[in-house]
Amino acid sequence: MPLKDNAAIEITAFEWVPQGAQGLVKDLRVRWALEEAGLDYRVRLIGGERPPGYEQDQPFNQVPCLRDDKVQIFESGAILQYIGERSESLLPRDEQARYRAIQWTYAGVSSLEPFVQFRALLNVVFADQPWAEPAKPTFDHFAQLRLQQLSGRLGDKQWIEGDRFTIGDLMLVTVLRIADRSSQLADFPKLAAYVKRGEARPAFQQALSDQLTAFREHEPEGAAA
Amino acid sequence: MPLKDNAAIEITAFEWVPQGAQGLVKDLRVRWALEEAGLDYRVRLIGGERPPGYEQDQPFNQVPCLRDDKVQIFESGAILQYIGERSESLLPRDEQARYRAIQWTYAGVSSLEPFVQFRALLNVVFADQPWAEPAKPTFDHFAQLRLQQLSGRLGDKQWIEGDRFTIGDLMLVTVLRIADRSSQLADFPKLAAYVKRGEARPAFQQALSDQLTAFREHEPEGAAA
Repeated sequence: MPLKDNAAIEITAFEWVPQGAQGLVKDLRVRWALEEAGLDYRVRLIGGERPPGYEQDQPFNQVPCLRDDKVQIFESGAILQYIGERSESLLPRDEQARYRAIQWTYAGVSSLEPFVQFRALLNVVFADQPWAEPAKPTFDHFAQLRLQQLSGRLGDKQWIEGDRFTIGDLMLVTVLRIADRSSQLADFPKLAAYVKRGEARPAFQQALSDQLTAFREHEPEGAAA
Repeated sequence: MPLKDNAAIEITAFEWVPQGAQGLVKDLRVRWALEEAGLDYRVRLIGGERPPGYEQDQPFNQVPCLRDDKVQIFESGAILQYIGERSESLLPRDEQARYRAIQWTYAGVSSLEPFVQFRALLNVVFADQPWAEPAKPTFDHFAQLRLQQLSGRLGDKQWIEGDRFTIGDLMLVTVLRIADRSSQLADFPKLAAYVKRGEARPAFQQALSDQLTAFREHEPEGAAA
């Protein structure tokens, strides 16, 4: 149970987001990795109105950031690597295995997430735009192609490089959860099962519970699901 | 002049791409980093029809991949880190400076490139789609916001974290060149000057020249600019 008020590691998270984003906000990745690594952390909750100077911590006004006695950084991928350096279970020391894990962490945010995320936004944030509906087939095509390619690479393996769970899997699973929430995994049972395997890990369960607990505690009046 | 036939490091690149993509293909990042690090490399050129089994090297059928006697990896960000580990001039050893460089490498591909790239695609690949024109204001808004935020963080500094050029700058400059090519930097003179500083480096010049030379040598008949 690494959530501790006096922990050296502090991460930022939103105090509340609308239902559609709950369980998908990117501090979940970092909470999950910290739980896997057994590292204590505390959370600095940020409102919709960012606190003064927050752009010094995160120039794009997003979450998460991480700070401890050594570093102050943002970008979930960089933070996963930082946590991974402290936990061989998440980031292997062998050079090939290490760079494969890092490769998949980048692939998650760079080759997969943009396609999956833009497609998901067409259903939500852009839904009232007149171009959203006609744009869907094109965005579907690109997102589905990337998912198909990833599914082919995963095959029947437990994790993306075999039997060992790394920060690469952690990143891929959190990105695939965005796809799953917007029904993009319907044709990819292997990816859906991979997500389920990730979600079944006790560290994931704890991380998700802690993110959702904060949202419940800060729910605006009249915003109930 | 690190391009050598018998080098231990092999990267993949496309043998030819249309004019609009020349100078922007992502092997440029890796060539540039190898030049900065003074590491010899050779190039395996890939055609539009990918060679059999290429999806084993790169599941999304893109370039670049890197292989040497230790690793075989893809994703330009992961490859930049791998090269950076071999060159303290590109990836500092001090923990805060190191993770700041890694953070910006991720920020380039994750927080900036998707917005800039999708906006650029609206002018090119998606240009004949009826939804492309009405979608532009929305994509403009998101891309311009991110660029404004990055410009604010860069300020009057030479490089993103001060006086020292790292893989973070290398990544950001190559992403900003996509924005520049599609006129997205018109309102951001500080970012445009940052791109110019990156492009002025001899290692960049050599890398760009080598990418373009391969395209000239493999230009299809009738495809002249």
